[in-house]
Amino acid sequence: MTKQITSIQNPFFQQLVLLKYKSKARKTSGLFLIEGEREIILALKGDYRLETILYYPKLFSEEQLKNLTTQQLNNSTTQQLNIIEVSKEVYQKLAYRETTEGVIAVAKAKNLSLENIVFKTENPLILIAEAPEKPGNIGALLRTADAANVDAVIIANPKPDLYNPNIIRSSVGCVFTNQIAVGTTSEIIQFLKENNINIFCAALQASVEYHTQDYTKPTAIVVGTEATGLTNEWLENATQNIIIPMQGEIDSMNVSVTAGILIFEAKKQRNFL
Amino acid sequence: MTKQITSIQNPFFQQLVLLKYKSKARKTSGLFLIEGEREIILALKGDYRLETILYYPKLFSEEQLKNLTTQQLNNSTTQQLNIIEVSKEVYQKLAYRETTEGVIAVAKAKNLSLENIVFKTENPLILIAEAPEKPGNIGALLRTADAANVDAVIIANPKPDLYNPNIIRSSVGCVFTNQIAVGTTSEIIQFLKENNINIFCAALQASVEYHTQDYTKPTAIVVGTEATGLTNEWLENATQNIIIPMQGEIDSMNVSVTAGILIFEAKKQRNFL
Repeated sequence: MTKQITSIQNPFFQQLVLLKYKSKARKTSGLFLIEGEREIILALKGDYRLETILYYPKLFSEEQLKNLTTQQLNNSTTQQLNIIEVSKEVYQKLAYRETTEGVIAVAKAKNLSLENIVFKTENPLILIAEAPEKPGNIGALLRTADAANVDAVIIANPKPDLYNPNIIRSSVGCVFTNQIAVGTTSEIIQFLKENNINIFCAALQASVEYHTQDYTKPTAIVVGTEATGLTNEWLENATQNIIIPMQGEIDSMNVSVTAGILIFEAKKQRNFL
Repeated sequence: MTKQITSIQNPFFQQLVLLKYKSKARKTSGLFLIEGEREIILALKGDYRLETILYYPKLFSEEQLKNLTTQQLNNSTTQQLNIIEVSKEVYQKLAYRETTEGVIAVAKAKNLSLENIVFKTENPLILIAEAPEKPGNIGALLRTADAANVDAVIIANPKPDLYNPNIIRSSVGCVFTNQIAVGTTSEIIQFLKENNINIFCAALQASVEYHTQDYTKPTAIVVGTEATGLTNEWLENATQNIIIPMQGEIDSMNVSVTAGILIFEAKKQRNFL
């Protein structure tokens, strides 16, 4: 028999609310919420494991539910999946979007350690962002990384955790389609050097124009925050600091636009392979 | 003597609140609000005319105020400028940001007709966005356009008006540094054809790869919405529809990232001149 939650007094519901709003609750439990059928399917494709599916039957059909649970079973035969029917009130308090999808999954976070990175190619292209803050920018970076099919996205000194519902949403699920790792700037630089990966840092000072460089060898493109740029540790350890020539009054492009221009210059040099 | 507003019952204050929140109020009055010293200075540089400066003296000094009013006088000798000191409560209700700047100007909107466009060069590069919705994306587009020093930004069938405070903020003032026009898609296509400007439309179908095209002649780069792309009217009137090769699971880049990649491909072909 399907379980039900109809009251916002329910203690399990109250745990879920914490997962929605509190980074700390996500970190200590190792769990997070995924809203929307499309995003849940992308997470399953990306080998995320679901623990629970909550659905509001007026918006999400038995057929859709069956489709999701089948996919989960294909992923892992040993895993038990809780299915919980929820009331409208409970659903709305857990949901993030206005256009309600009717389904939310509780999923297990992955271990995002650098040592788990497996390069898809012998000549990797990696996008690195140091301390990005705005979920919208992180989402746009992840969408660019997905479209460019980079080998990995690495976040240095992360501010919001990647399972923040705003990041999942603004990435339109690309947080699940990319290989992602997090670490301190020092750890990442060491990792890149050990793997003989050239480091190109987007910087305003002591830089050469980005299109003069060769990105056909193992390459990491590194971008900093809009407010302060990259830390000196990155700039001093760069193979080369690079700049996009700018000629405006302000010269401050959005960080995800900068990353897109640099990553696709690399893709073009690699003949989009 | 400096005027003062200390009560939120003040009728002029209530008009200003409408300018902050209501597109219609901005349209009918031809006025809008600019928050922040940096943004106001950029607007003055961009030949915007201020009607009123409101300042909260604890955050904005007499010295800063004098600097602004001098710049306005340099712009226009005949124009009267109202200076109004406001209370903390009045200021906070008008301000958009959390980090308060202490100064807000009431400025006169420009006529954004296509016929007012004056090309800076004989070989213009123009960025066009059809029906962009999110102020954050519009702001990022305007920042890219500023950095690339394009001849003009044209918004087709605009949704939010460009003097929306969220657009001013997310553009970090680039709404004032770019030459901007708005019009219907039909009007803009006619304008481009009359001026012999090649039209390159970012599209997923019937497109060639963007980097195979020549953007060194008079060029308009046109991007649509993330949800539905460009309308058929654009696609059918394109000199060429172009696509950025994508290889991911999702293949949906942020519209301002797409525009950035295309505009800087054009800039590179033009040797960043």
